[in-house]
Amino acid sequence: MTAGPAGGEWEPEDAAPDGWPVPLRGVTESVIATKGPNGLWNVAALGLHAGDPVTAETYGNTRTRRNFERRGGGVVQFVADPRAFVDAALTIREADDPVLPSADAWVEVEAAFVGSREEGETTIREWELRPGDGEVVREGATTINRGFGAVIEATVAASRLGVAGFDDADLRARLDSLADVVDRCGGAREREAMARVAAASEWERPEN
Amino acid sequence: MTAGPAGGEWEPEDAAPDGWPVPLRGVTESVIATKGPNGLWNVAALGLHAGDPVTAETYGNTRTRRNFERRGGGVVQFVADPRAFVDAALTIREADDPVLPSADAWVEVEAAFVGSREEGETTIREWELRPGDGEVVREGATTINRGFGAVIEATVAASRLGVAGFDDADLRARLDSLADVVDRCGGAREREAMARVAAASEWERPEN
Repeated sequence: MTAGPAGGEWEPEDAAPDGWPVPLRGVTESVIATKGPNGLWNVAALGLHAGDPVTAETYGNTRTRRNFERRGGGVVQFVADPRAFVDAALTIREADDPVLPSADAWVEVEAAFVGSREEGETTIREWELRPGDGEVVREGATTINRGFGAVIEATVAASRLGVAGFDDADLRARLDSLADVVDRCGGAREREAMARVAAASEWERPEN
Repeated sequence: MTAGPAGGEWEPEDAAPDGWPVPLRGVTESVIATKGPNGLWNVAALGLHAGDPVTAETYGNTRTRRNFERRGGGVVQFVADPRAFVDAALTIREADDPVLPSADAWVEVEAAFVGSREEGETTIREWELRPGDGEVVREGATTINRGFGAVIEATVAASRLGVAGFDDADLRARLDSLADVVDRCGGAREREAMARVAAASEWERPEN
């Protein structure tokens, strides 16, 4: 396969897998809403592992894990707003409705427990996800923004602060560097998302 | 502004600026085709700085800079295939046609020189870009893939290898780490793109 002008042979990305609203490859970062015992929908981040079936992992005793066990599934959604991803990944959010206003696409999933493993003191559970009803709400041409990527990496780094096995000083230096990329390359939403990373974590943004 | 369920108030991203096929914010990474003296279109990477007008910078005596001067513009395009971005950024590519098969959107631009500054031994020229004819070729719901972001960051790091003012050992460690993210989170296109980063640079991918 050649991408680019020399060849001229090029195919668009693989189609979405059966029942899913968007193409999936490697690990696609999504947002998952699961209904809690209080009847509200808990909103969290969930990495979708492409495959047949699609799988996902929960780390430790999270609300997503507990609600998967109680309810047998939830609603996966795909957001392009970096603030929505940060909120899902780093804060406890509950909503009356399962689908976020910022979701570009969503799909109901059944989650079936398939096994677990231990990593340090954390139990990692694997789930098979079977898609149900879903919808593409909003489409556009893809654009590349380094600031957007920096926000996603910052949520990963911030979620590891204080976790055994990760070096806090390294993570903080990384967050400082990612904040610089957001300042140089991001738009207003990326800057606001990075401020939310700071607000939701022990990391403080360096003064510019 | 609140993204997410708590508020429910949410607006889609700003519309595309007048004449542009896609929304722009901060610095949007694009591909630029410019017609060379041999009649072929040179394909390179170009960061678009949002604003009115949109601007871009060329670093040193690149083909894009020379062709902007000769021809007064080129064709900006937006690609979602990471291989196409790597090829544009790190290799010399020439094409018979200005629009890549992988372009999701494209727009002709006039480029007007507005000034220059020196950074070390490099002359950085700033250009105002005025959009002309253009088209959105392909749309989809946005998905988030950390492997994709890692490829973009890897092109930046690889382009700095051997450049004064950057630490080669740091850049190589960064590239190793980005290759790990591509392995864990990317799809087939990201893995192929990362192999192209290695092929086009002095960096060698560590064995896994």
